[in-house]
Amino acid sequence: MTTEQLVKEIQKKKSFLCIGLDVDLNKIPQQLLEEEDPIFAFNKAIIDATHHLCVAYKPNTAFYEAYGLKGWKSLEKTIQYLNEYYPEIFTIADAKRGDIGNTSTMYAKAFFEDLAFDSVTVAPYMGKDSVEPFLAFKDKHTIMLALTSNAGAFDFQTLSVNNTELYKQVLETSKTWNHSENLMYVVGATKAEYLADIRNIIPDSFLLVPGVGAQGGNLQDVCKYGMNDTVGLLINSSRGIIYASNNADFAEVAAQKAKELQLEMEAELNAYFK
Amino acid sequence: MTTEQLVKEIQKKKSFLCIGLDVDLNKIPQQLLEEEDPIFAFNKAIIDATHHLCVAYKPNTAFYEAYGLKGWKSLEKTIQYLNEYYPEIFTIADAKRGDIGNTSTMYAKAFFEDLAFDSVTVAPYMGKDSVEPFLAFKDKHTIMLALTSNAGAFDFQTLSVNNTELYKQVLETSKTWNHSENLMYVVGATKAEYLADIRNIIPDSFLLVPGVGAQGGNLQDVCKYGMNDTVGLLINSSRGIIYASNNADFAEVAAQKAKELQLEMEAELNAYFK
Repeated sequence: MTTEQLVKEIQKKKSFLCIGLDVDLNKIPQQLLEEEDPIFAFNKAIIDATHHLCVAYKPNTAFYEAYGLKGWKSLEKTIQYLNEYYPEIFTIADAKRGDIGNTSTMYAKAFFEDLAFDSVTVAPYMGKDSVEPFLAFKDKHTIMLALTSNAGAFDFQTLSVNNTELYKQVLETSKTWNHSENLMYVVGATKAEYLADIRNIIPDSFLLVPGVGAQGGNLQDVCKYGMNDTVGLLINSSRGIIYASNNADFAEVAAQKAKELQLEMEAELNAYFK
Repeated sequence: MTTEQLVKEIQKKKSFLCIGLDVDLNKIPQQLLEEEDPIFAFNKAIIDATHHLCVAYKPNTAFYEAYGLKGWKSLEKTIQYLNEYYPEIFTIADAKRGDIGNTSTMYAKAFFEDLAFDSVTVAPYMGKDSVEPFLAFKDKHTIMLALTSNAGAFDFQTLSVNNTELYKQVLETSKTWNHSENLMYVVGATKAEYLADIRNIIPDSFLLVPGVGAQGGNLQDVCKYGMNDTVGLLINSSRGIIYASNNADFAEVAAQKAKELQLEMEAELNAYFK
């Protein structure tokens, strides 16, 4: 999917919501455990109920790998279902991969070719040759960690380097890489005030913003500092939507929660693009 | 496996060799492609031929994920084979994972419980709460990236922070984390001269050292600066061993290459522990 297609979809749906499919068998409605593939059954119900309210889904690979082969099968079925029935949806493999060059190429093949995701998240610590193999794929997007939403973000990401902070240096350096036009960045909503500085460095890039809702981030602040003329934001919510109810009505309640966020986003879009 | 058991095995075999099982179907002997599971067939042959010469095997997960469900199945069969037939071997899932707390817990379960590896590699960028969930597992080991063997290591890892370099700060900070006794570190052999400084910060920790052989690192230099009183080193070789031949004799030639390295290691051990 091209960035232009993503932006068009955002303007059409008046939503830049990404729904995180972080499926924990201990948290889903227990009647689903009788299904042959409870994880896929859960995802399918959530997707069918919410696809018109969001523009992206983001399965975090950890939640699938934890269930071994069965989990990987559920991930495969989920992405295949999305690509078959909702090809207009932007898909994100939240995998946070990164390795030396030839190994990163294997990861890129895994997520872009074998599973056919539109994008994958990567970690920056190993530098240029660990990320460029992902960037080489046409119309695929590589979403690199910049400033994350967890407490540990302050351990290293905000350390002072070269009269700036590490995460800003990561942003600056990444702009020089081959096919950097295929980069997006993870910036946590819990640190919305940092977004103004971030936008000075990467005015045009899309940002994937986790941490709204369960982790305490504020949608209005993120939009105030982060929105640009092509919207430039994908705001993720996982637990706040998919676990809003664990009764038989879970998909319906998830859709209500997604609708609430979509309406907030619509207001922000109307204000910005008036 | 405890560190003591690993050290005992090293002294018994006179080897601290780790063999990287980075299996690329384009590089293995083509007659194996007729097998039902060519990746596992290759691994099994390599393991059976080399297990007495090494103390650890390290499958890199990228090479398995690239083949989707089939690849994950091959990984599962490989670790099950190792745990069943060679339980004295230290197993490393080279996965370079790391995510926010509850997600890292899922990765830890995937590799420590579901697949039953002894250890997993992790990336430090997201800080304390992204690594501590791995450290909480008893007699399991978390091998964190410090200074990697690729060119991109100089993009961020060696930047100046707090009057030191980022990778040294990563080492220092990680010592303060809960259950830091379960940490080991990745330090590339291509930067052996850095090992003296690293040993000042973490004198007792085990180091997993990639980059000997194909990537140009030197075994003697690594031992000179990196060996400690419990050996403290696992030196990895992947391509230099497993792809030494791609004919029918591949396992035999791999064993010859492993034997060469084991003999070099025996000489280093004899010199240090004389």
